[in-house]
Amino acid sequence: MTATPAYDALKAQRQRIRRLEHIQSVATWDRMTHMPAGAAVARAAAQAELETVVQRLQTDPALDDLIARAHDEALDEAERADLALMRRDRKAALAIPEDLAARKTEATGAAMTAWTRARSANDWTIFAAALDPLIALVRDCADRLGAAFDLARYDALLDQYDRGLRLETVRALFDDVEQWLPGLIVRIRARQANTMPREPAGPFPTGGQRELCLKLMALLGFNFEGGRLDESAHPFTGGSSEDVRITTRFRDDQVLPALFAVIHETGHARYQAALPEAWRGQPLGEACSGSMHEAQALLLQRQLGQSRPFLSALSPMLTETFGAQPAFDPENLHHLMARVAPSRVRTEADEATYPAHVILRTRLEAALIAGDLKVADVPAAWDAQMKALLDLDPDGDARNGPLQDIHWAQGMFGYFPAYLLGAMIAAQLDEAFSRTASAGGLEARIAALGAWLEAEIWRQGSRWTTPELVARTTGRPLGAGAFRRHLERRYLEDAA
Amino acid sequence: MTATPAYDALKAQRQRIRRLEHIQSVATWDRMTHMPAGAAVARAAAQAELETVVQRLQTDPALDDLIARAHDEALDEAERADLALMRRDRKAALAIPEDLAARKTEATGAAMTAWTRARSANDWTIFAAALDPLIALVRDCADRLGAAFDLARYDALLDQYDRGLRLETVRALFDDVEQWLPGLIVRIRARQANTMPREPAGPFPTGGQRELCLKLMALLGFNFEGGRLDESAHPFTGGSSEDVRITTRFRDDQVLPALFAVIHETGHARYQAALPEAWRGQPLGEACSGSMHEAQALLLQRQLGQSRPFLSALSPMLTETFGAQPAFDPENLHHLMARVAPSRVRTEADEATYPAHVILRTRLEAALIAGDLKVADVPAAWDAQMKALLDLDPDGDARNGPLQDIHWAQGMFGYFPAYLLGAMIAAQLDEAFSRTASAGGLEARIAALGAWLEAEIWRQGSRWTTPELVARTTGRPLGAGAFRRHLERRYLEDAA
Repeated sequence: MTATPAYDALKAQRQRIRRLEHIQSVATWDRMTHMPAGAAVARAAAQAELETVVQRLQTDPALDDLIARAHDEALDEAERADLALMRRDRKAALAIPEDLAARKTEATGAAMTAWTRARSANDWTIFAAALDPLIALVRDCADRLGAAFDLARYDALLDQYDRGLRLETVRALFDDVEQWLPGLIVRIRARQANTMPREPAGPFPTGGQRELCLKLMALLGFNFEGGRLDESAHPFTGGSSEDVRITTRFRDDQVLPALFAVIHETGHARYQAALPEAWRGQPLGEACSGSMHEAQALLLQRQLGQSRPFLSALSPMLTETFGAQPAFDPENLHHLMARVAPSRVRTEADEATYPAHVILRTRLEAALIAGDLKVADVPAAWDAQMKALLDLDPDGDARNGPLQDIHWAQGMFGYFPAYLLGAMIAAQLDEAFSRTASAGGLEARIAALGAWLEAEIWRQGSRWTTPELVARTTGRPLGAGAFRRHLERRYLEDAA
Repeated sequence: MTATPAYDALKAQRQRIRRLEHIQSVATWDRMTHMPAGAAVARAAAQAELETVVQRLQTDPALDDLIARAHDEALDEAERADLALMRRDRKAALAIPEDLAARKTEATGAAMTAWTRARSANDWTIFAAALDPLIALVRDCADRLGAAFDLARYDALLDQYDRGLRLETVRALFDDVEQWLPGLIVRIRARQANTMPREPAGPFPTGGQRELCLKLMALLGFNFEGGRLDESAHPFTGGSSEDVRITTRFRDDQVLPALFAVIHETGHARYQAALPEAWRGQPLGEACSGSMHEAQALLLQRQLGQSRPFLSALSPMLTETFGAQPAFDPENLHHLMARVAPSRVRTEADEATYPAHVILRTRLEAALIAGDLKVADVPAAWDAQMKALLDLDPDGDARNGPLQDIHWAQGMFGYFPAYLLGAMIAAQLDEAFSRTASAGGLEARIAALGAWLEAEIWRQGSRWTTPELVARTTGRPLGAGAFRRHLERRYLEDAA
């Protein structure tokens, strides 16, 4: 018997959960990459069953007593931080009564079905009928979490995805961006008006694209002993720290999207693989937040991947795989990747217009949760924001409008800000790293960046909140300044 | 509330177990086909954790009361058969005390490790040291199962894999085969002495082999909406009825092994996919036995796949994929596939010499369990049997001798006879089907065979024991006669 039996029992329970989640992650990855269509119903039932087992472990009433007893045990500072996170998880779980959780799960299922139908009919009202009751339940959950953690309603949702993050902070940051972004986009567009980069001419056989993706992953430090690359309809990073699985999507007529999706996911993968091994399974060993995860992916994709040195290295790799063509010229690749044009679909947006999509949906979801916006009025509000932020006129296309993202149908309110916060954090980390970095070629820079991120971010797990970790690592509070400087440098100052 | 609440509760419990086993089957398939090497330790721990969850459900003490109450409920005949199988499972689980099961699991782990080391050192004694204590535990388990089911020691083991099968039956059947097999092999060899079939000349690129495998699977009625083909070190059939996953192994220099492995596994796959849907998750809905499963695979691989009509259809497929060569001539394919030569490795043995390998190991394992053979004496006994059955002289190679099969290391005693019983059943089913079959080409015959097996075998689930199902389907008791006639027809009477 150790001196900390209660804390040890809590840790053991987390290990059990983590092991089951490892299996669940394999099943999810398989569902997205390999599962035959006919298995969908059986798989959904099977994964729900395993989820039930995990939930039962997570809500074991014995945990409360263990947590109380562990509080009086002789824990070191890290263990105490870990215990605090366990208590937080437990408090959040207890705040939501079982029947409310069940009703929310049911409403989410109905909303997912309605979202799919609404998309194929291109009709917001179909989704609205299912979203309305779901939002009522999300609000109820948020109020209960808010009461438990002494937080306002939307803050309680934010806090579950990004501990310590408040709507006030998000609003201030996003308002800042809104001040300068539309003008910046106009200036960039004016500057690019006479530049017409060449599109790479396909076909680009999947085998070659895959080979090139694997080379890029190797260049970026992906560990193939502990992970793989596969294909799926939408790129994602799954698996567990010991077995990180990233995916991309190949199209015969395009080559850059598959490659940059892989670069992005490799950023997620390296973070996931490098989380502190000694704390695996414990809350302290988890990634800091969704926004911090997104920052790791964007740092590789945008700051590094779209940099001239990287594109200069990519150019001969493209030529070697697919033969020479003028579009593979480094200068042309730069212009292609730096092209800025307002568009309606977030996931296809360029670096400069992307923030507008995030600001737009964050605003709408905060208003929906607050009760200041009715579900029926979302399309009109969407159109107004699209006009204000990106100067795009309404086209009446719900599928590429408010129906484009799955988050609300999944009951995910409070996650969306992470996409823009991630871009800000990436830029701020890049500035801080550049201050420390010594000279050297691309490979040396990638190695130095990996080592720096590993020490500063990845190995920190959940020891700090996002704002704390950004401040510790960069010496400055989380802000939009570095992101703005990055955009101005790349799109206005760089030799055109 | 229904009229059968206890039985319904039992069914619901089985459904939960089945769903978790579905997830487990995905994790196992992934481990064999896609998992990166570095994930092995984490995966083993994760799968063991899920196994623990399943075992806890299987040994829930509440089951005893439910079974007792269900006995008095108004069940129909099939439900009553299902309940009887549940009671049987429960009785078997209760017969083995938890600590004995745990010690056996531990001893199996040690034996697996020792087996791997022994194989790489080519040294039986390394394995023997770990096998000896494992056999003692297997014997203990067998005695307890025997006491519970009123069975002799080895019969209790057999009965767990093949309900109702007895050593007496196995001995009688195997002794029968031993009477005529060695002489038959000599006659076949004499007849083939002057036939030198051409080996197909490679290389055979994996892409082409894979494409051809998929075509064969389609020809044999594999449902790709509910299954897939992948690669692994050893071919296997995994997954669940809704998602059947078969694998094969590709070698650049050979083409027929990969194809015939796929034909074999497709036989397993069709059985698994066609088990009665209404009884999925219930013991009544499971496959009848290992020997019946093996029979479905061998029926496609041997009786159908090695038949002249099939090889005549395969010939142009090979030519289309890899270009023409004399080895692809149907007559040459027939001679290649019909070649008989005693060899030391079971999994590489031809149809005629294969039974000797099964008889040999079955005999040794029955003697080991009975205590009539010491583990240290296995290599000498092995050599003596090899000489008697296949006229092969000892070569002192343990790796291709008693160390070649993993079953004992896994604690699997009593399963081995299934390999030869499967061949007997396949031949007997083939004879019975041929009596019913109308004329028609290969595709019509495959469709008719599938429909016949589906009605006679696959949809029967576990309603009958192997001997019962064979007798019902073929009108004759399970015997070696059809297998002998099949061998004589193919190897002695067929136009050479």
